[in-house]
Amino acid sequence: MSDTEGLPTVDGFRFAGIACGIKESGNPDLGLIVADEVVPAAALFTRNLVKAAPVVLAKTRIERGRARAVLVNSGNANACTGKEGMTLARSTTEAVADALGADADTVIPASTGIIGRRLPAERIEGATEELLADLSADGAGRFAKAIMTTDRWPKVAHRKVPLAPGVEATILGFAKGAGMIHPDMATTLAFVVTDAPTHSSFLNKALRRSAETTFNALSVDGETSTNDTIVAMASGKLDTPPIGGSDREAKVFTSAMEEVMDELGKSIVRDGEGAEHVVRLEVHGAPSEDAAQKIAERVAGSLLVKTAIHGCDPNWGRIISAAGMAGVSFDPTKVEIRFGNVVLAKKGMAVGGDAEQRAAEVMQEKEYVIRIKLGPGTAKAHYTFCDLGHEYVRINAEYTT
Amino acid sequence: MSDTEGLPTVDGFRFAGIACGIKESGNPDLGLIVADEVVPAAALFTRNLVKAAPVVLAKTRIERGRARAVLVNSGNANACTGKEGMTLARSTTEAVADALGADADTVIPASTGIIGRRLPAERIEGATEELLADLSADGAGRFAKAIMTTDRWPKVAHRKVPLAPGVEATILGFAKGAGMIHPDMATTLAFVVTDAPTHSSFLNKALRRSAETTFNALSVDGETSTNDTIVAMASGKLDTPPIGGSDREAKVFTSAMEEVMDELGKSIVRDGEGAEHVVRLEVHGAPSEDAAQKIAERVAGSLLVKTAIHGCDPNWGRIISAAGMAGVSFDPTKVEIRFGNVVLAKKGMAVGGDAEQRAAEVMQEKEYVIRIKLGPGTAKAHYTFCDLGHEYVRINAEYTT
Repeated sequence: MSDTEGLPTVDGFRFAGIACGIKESGNPDLGLIVADEVVPAAALFTRNLVKAAPVVLAKTRIERGRARAVLVNSGNANACTGKEGMTLARSTTEAVADALGADADTVIPASTGIIGRRLPAERIEGATEELLADLSADGAGRFAKAIMTTDRWPKVAHRKVPLAPGVEATILGFAKGAGMIHPDMATTLAFVVTDAPTHSSFLNKALRRSAETTFNALSVDGETSTNDTIVAMASGKLDTPPIGGSDREAKVFTSAMEEVMDELGKSIVRDGEGAEHVVRLEVHGAPSEDAAQKIAERVAGSLLVKTAIHGCDPNWGRIISAAGMAGVSFDPTKVEIRFGNVVLAKKGMAVGGDAEQRAAEVMQEKEYVIRIKLGPGTAKAHYTFCDLGHEYVRINAEYTT
Repeated sequence: MSDTEGLPTVDGFRFAGIACGIKESGNPDLGLIVADEVVPAAALFTRNLVKAAPVVLAKTRIERGRARAVLVNSGNANACTGKEGMTLARSTTEAVADALGADADTVIPASTGIIGRRLPAERIEGATEELLADLSADGAGRFAKAIMTTDRWPKVAHRKVPLAPGVEATILGFAKGAGMIHPDMATTLAFVVTDAPTHSSFLNKALRRSAETTFNALSVDGETSTNDTIVAMASGKLDTPPIGGSDREAKVFTSAMEEVMDELGKSIVRDGEGAEHVVRLEVHGAPSEDAAQKIAERVAGSLLVKTAIHGCDPNWGRIISAAGMAGVSFDPTKVEIRFGNVVLAKKGMAVGGDAEQRAAEVMQEKEYVIRIKLGPGTAKAHYTFCDLGHEYVRINAEYTT
């Protein structure tokens, strides 16, 4: 979903998004989510060895499972910026904390943009007053726009979760990210807020579980940027018992959170810097889930597969060849490959006839499924990815300059 | 070297290259190297789990360390073609063997082109007579052209090796390959012939050693297509004692072979489907050679690094971020990055000043070095790669159709 009109409010949260001058374009580059008070929070961070200052700081701050606010800037990653980077991540969050009358340790920072440049902290600090003045319960759209970098549209998603008769919780999610050529260093940020009452331990569990089948199947999964961050906060304003454990409400809530994250994730892939097709790659019949995942990741990451998708060319040979490099043992003569409903290859060989022509028609679709059946195994995995087009080259060759 | 004029002859070998109708374009697509008799031979093959029929056949045939001829077709990989593919790999080599009066087991097949399509063996078999009629001692240029696919130029390299006073051996090498975006499925074929007298065990050792620092640092290295094949043959026509063991001649010969392979490898990278820059990436100061190699491979394979190179953008942040995902432990605050002679980052941070501007000037060069010093370690590795440009997308999105 790219429309920021008609977004729900989430009781207990206010949002802001302004331009403070980090981006030369003058576009919005500073966002803030503030809870009315310190609330339960959970987060996931990049697994990259090289971690940006805001990630290092956020990790220590979120450890206690509580947060008051999230301060996000775009246009500068504050990564590879040494001790000064840490000092500036601290000072910017302190400025906001002071203005809010909050403890600095409850303000979670996140940054995205160019690596290795000093964060223009004075612009953020100088804009604190304006940022706070911009806060409002219906400011979600402004926040979504302020965290964008190469994104072509703001990314938001929301769900209502029935927790009791006549009582519905709201889950509202934001994301920033594009360039999912491979989940390769293109920073993904995501923020999920809810008015549901819960504890940070449950929130943490629900976030991890939701990420597993969504963001982890397109990003984060060991292949992350210096800045990747996902934060969840729960205001608990809704007057129902706290969700937790394995009760029905916990399941319904987690499932709704997964839907929100799935929608955000797909929007990121769809925005893949020039992408024209979004492909859901399904690997079936694998000897183990790990094997299925390795093959899915390898095929989804193959440049030759991505360019074939771009050219609407049913070149299944590139798919089986990529699978053969995943470091997983399988019998190539058992492999079946489908594009949509069209079986292109059986027993590792071309089906022939008009299959290629019909597959080429499937490939005209904006979204379709490629299915690899490896053999008689029962394990499976999926991966969502996009094609590689000229726009990707243009955008990424010109990013700094 | 892309010029096929003035290539040396190699005593004991004849070469041919013709068009037999596999390629719709009518371009040459069938090549043959024939030794006067069965001679010592060695080979390296793809490590992809999915192996083309000619690879499977060639592997068994070369095991005895002897060969009479190499039969190469371009335009069709004969991969994922099942039992029929094996039958056709056999029948085409048998046709050539019969015409030569040779044992079929001494004819080594190699194929490159589209995967999953039936090899038009009847066109190869029907052209056998014409192919043999084309054989000549000075046919190396025709052979080089016949094995091309998306190559923009034929790839040849040669060296003279002094083995005794007044006695010089000749090493002549051919290669086919481009698209070295990553050493990812773009098939590499290479053939090296010499008139030096030697045994297959030494030839095997020299080939492996030469590949290690050349082709393995840009291809073959676990990241190979269904068809990758490198074959070496030695006619032994030169009247000197056989090279072998660790004598001076063995060293000189191996070193010359390495130079030939290095030149061929660089020509492949330079031809990288739209590449405008060839970068030698050097990783120094690593805790182990394995760590250095993993980092080099990861950085060289990063799309964001490749597009930055294309845009002449000294975005060293993408380099350190890619290094951080190599699964190798290092201290990011110790990292130094140079482009040519320009130090861009020290202690994991930007150097500032006019370093970026001067690095951007280095990046205008067609060939330059990027050097990553990880820390105080002594291990190092290198990798040769190219940028990712629009041409890559165009060529690979339109390959089959």
